[in-house]
Amino acid sequence: MAVFVYKFGGTSVGSVERIKAVAEKIKKSTELGNHIVVVVSAMSGETNRLTGLAKEMQAQPNSREMDVLLSTGEQVTMSLLSMALHDLDCPACSYTGGQVKILTDSMHTKARIIEIDDVKIKQDLDQGKVVVVAGFQGIDEHGNITTLGRGGSDTTAVALAAALKADECHIYTDVDGVYTTDPRVEPKARRLDKITFEEMLELASLGSKVLQIRAVEFAGKYNVALRVLSSFKEGCGTLITYEESQMERALISGIAFNRDEAKLTITGVPDLPGVASKILCPVADKNIEVDMIIQNIAADETTDFTFTVHRNDYQKSKQVLEETCKELGAKQVTGDDSIVKVSIVGVGMRSHAGIASTMFKVLADEGINIRMISTSEIKISVVVDEKYLELAVRALHKAFDLEKEEE
Amino acid sequence: MAVFVYKFGGTSVGSVERIKAVAEKIKKSTELGNHIVVVVSAMSGETNRLTGLAKEMQAQPNSREMDVLLSTGEQVTMSLLSMALHDLDCPACSYTGGQVKILTDSMHTKARIIEIDDVKIKQDLDQGKVVVVAGFQGIDEHGNITTLGRGGSDTTAVALAAALKADECHIYTDVDGVYTTDPRVEPKARRLDKITFEEMLELASLGSKVLQIRAVEFAGKYNVALRVLSSFKEGCGTLITYEESQMERALISGIAFNRDEAKLTITGVPDLPGVASKILCPVADKNIEVDMIIQNIAADETTDFTFTVHRNDYQKSKQVLEETCKELGAKQVTGDDSIVKVSIVGVGMRSHAGIASTMFKVLADEGINIRMISTSEIKISVVVDEKYLELAVRALHKAFDLEKEEE
Repeated sequence: MAVFVYKFGGTSVGSVERIKAVAEKIKKSTELGNHIVVVVSAMSGETNRLTGLAKEMQAQPNSREMDVLLSTGEQVTMSLLSMALHDLDCPACSYTGGQVKILTDSMHTKARIIEIDDVKIKQDLDQGKVVVVAGFQGIDEHGNITTLGRGGSDTTAVALAAALKADECHIYTDVDGVYTTDPRVEPKARRLDKITFEEMLELASLGSKVLQIRAVEFAGKYNVALRVLSSFKEGCGTLITYEESQMERALISGIAFNRDEAKLTITGVPDLPGVASKILCPVADKNIEVDMIIQNIAADETTDFTFTVHRNDYQKSKQVLEETCKELGAKQVTGDDSIVKVSIVGVGMRSHAGIASTMFKVLADEGINIRMISTSEIKISVVVDEKYLELAVRALHKAFDLEKEEE
Repeated sequence: MAVFVYKFGGTSVGSVERIKAVAEKIKKSTELGNHIVVVVSAMSGETNRLTGLAKEMQAQPNSREMDVLLSTGEQVTMSLLSMALHDLDCPACSYTGGQVKILTDSMHTKARIIEIDDVKIKQDLDQGKVVVVAGFQGIDEHGNITTLGRGGSDTTAVALAAALKADECHIYTDVDGVYTTDPRVEPKARRLDKITFEEMLELASLGSKVLQIRAVEFAGKYNVALRVLSSFKEGCGTLITYEESQMERALISGIAFNRDEAKLTITGVPDLPGVASKILCPVADKNIEVDMIIQNIAADETTDFTFTVHRNDYQKSKQVLEETCKELGAKQVTGDDSIVKVSIVGVGMRSHAGIASTMFKVLADEGINIRMISTSEIKISVVVDEKYLELAVRALHKAFDLEKEEE
C-alpha cells in the first residue's frame, strides 16, 4: 500500500471552507487505499497575528517563548483538519512536533531536525488513520518547543517522508507546479512534468519561489520524491526527482530571473592577495547579501571587481565600497541599480556543449547587451539592463524550445 | 524563601496591557524574594473563538482534537506573559501541561490530574526564574493532550501548590475576595479575611461563584492555603484555610442564595421502600440535576415528596413527574417556579445551638413564609417566595452580625 506525505501551506488551510476542502481531498486519496500523513502550516494570517502580539510584549521577543507562541498556529490547524476528517467519517489523529516526536537542535526560531520517531505514526497508519502533523515545529532534547524557521513546514513534510520511506511527498501550494519561466512574463511558459533536484535548487534560488531551498536540499539528500501541486486545481503538478540518465531530456529546464538586482564595480584595485576579502568583508559586516561576484583579469597590476546585491542595499553598499576604495588606493566606484539577472537552468548543459554560446547569440540577435556573466555546472546567468528583461526571457524561452510539449 | 503559586484567569490576561500589568505584579513579588509559579488561563474570548471554529468543522467535535485545539489558548498566554517578564528583566520560562508534566487520566475535555512532575519547576525556581504554566491542561500516559474542563486553571494552580508545598496559592480574579453575601443585594456585605474550606464549598455551590468547587475540594484535601484576590485592586483578599479551633469565630460566615430554583411536589405517594428512587431516576435519566430533596413523614400510608431543580428544567421535570405519578398511583403533582433558596453557612453552627431557630424567627418577624427547609452540618437552607429574596438576605445579614468588622 502506498504511503504519501501531503503538505498544505497557510493559504491552503486559510479558512474553515478551505480546511474542509483539504479534508475532502485527503478522504478521496484514502479511498484509493493510500496511507496518508498530512503536514499543515498555520492558517494564513495567524503567524502574523501572533508575531504582532509578541512584539507588543517585547521589542525583540525571547526566542524560546517565540517558539512556544508560534507553534500554537499549526496546532490549531491540525486539530481543525482532524475534526473535519472525523466529520467525513475518516479516522484521524493529530500530533504536535513534540508529540511525534520531531527531535531538533536547540536553535530557537531556526532549529534543524535531528531525528524523527515514527512509531506512533506507523501505528496509526496501520490502524487506517490519517495522521495530521504540525509543520514547522519540533522539540529539543530538553523538551523545549522549537520552530524550524522560514519554510519549515516543507522541511517537516520532506523529513517525515524520508523517515517513513514514503512513496511521494506532495507539496500543495497556490501554483500547480514548476514552470519553464514566469507565465506573467512569457504566457507560453509550460508546466514541467519533471525536474531534477539540482535544477529545482537553481530555479528556487533564482526566484521561482515555489519551494523552500532547504526542503529541496533535504529531499535530494534523502532521495524523497517531491511533487509540487495546486491545492485548488486538479492536476499532477511537477515531480522533482534524481536525474534519470536514460531519459531523453530537454537541454534547458527553465528560465529564472531576478528583477531586484543592482551591480557595483570598483576599478583600479591593486592586484594583491587578499584583495577580494578586503572588498567583501566590510559589505558582509553590514549584513548585505552579495549574489554574483566577478573579478576581471588583472591588467597593469590593477584589477576590476564587480558584484551584485539586492536593489534595496544598493546605496548602503556604495557607501561601504567608497570607504574601501580610499583605503585600498583603488581608482573609483561605479554602479547601476537598473539591472536584472536572467538565468537558464538545466542538467542537460552537462552533456551538451554550446549552450552558453547559443544563449549569448540569442541575446545579441535581439540587441541586448550583456553586462555580466556567471556560470555554474547547470546554470548560466547574465546581467542585462532592466528594460530588456521580458524580451530576454521570451527570446530564450523560444530559442531553447521550452514552448513545445515534452515528449 | 517563600514559594507562591499565582493563578490569573482569562479576564486578568485579557489584553496586552493586562498581561503587562500581571508581569509588573509578579516582578514586585519576586523583588520581595518570593519564588513564583504562575498559572494562566486563555485570554478572555479565545476559548469561545476556538470552540466556534471547532463547531464549524464538526457539530460535535472529536474530544481528543478539541483538547489539542483548546490547549493552544493557554499556550499563547503563557508565552506572552513570559515575554512581558523578560521585558522587565525578570527571567521566566513557560511550560505547557505536557512539558511540566501534569499527568492526567484520558478523559478528554474533563480529565483529572493524577500526578505532577515538579523537577523542571524546582530547577527553574532555584535558578531564580519565574515559572509560567498553562492552566487547564495536561497530558495522559500515552502523550495525548488533555484538558481539565470548567475551572480547570484553578485546579492546576492548587495541584501545583500541593506538589510544590507552596506557602500559599493565590487565585486572582475580578472580585477582591469572598463576601458575607452578594453586595448587589446587601450593600453592607463585608469581605471576609478568612473562611474555612467547608464554608467555601457551601458558599460556592450555593452561588458565590468565585472559585470552582473542584479546586476548593482539592485545596482542602491537600491542605493548600488558598487566597482569593483581585487582579486589579490592591488588598489581601480572603484566605481559605482549615478551621482553627482556638479562634473565636462568628457563628455565620456568609449568606448565599440562588434565584434560579423551582420546586416540584408529588403528593399521596404510596409509602413503600424504593419509592424515592422510582421518583428521581426518571428525572436523572433526562439529565436534570436535582438540588434539595425533602420527603415528609408518611400519613395514612402515603407520603409527599418534594425536590427543587434549576428553573430551566421546571417544565421538563413536571412532565416526567406526571408520568411517574400515574405509574405509582400517586395523588397529584404540584410545583412552583417562582421560588428562591437562601442559605446561611458557618462552621460556628457546629458548636452553637439555636442558629436554626434564630434564622426562622428572623424570617417570621419579616412576614416571610418558609416553603422548604434543608440542613447540613454547617448550612441551613430555606426556600421562600422569590419576592422575599432581598428582604430575607438583608434581615439575616443584620441578625447574624455580618455587618460588623471582624475581630
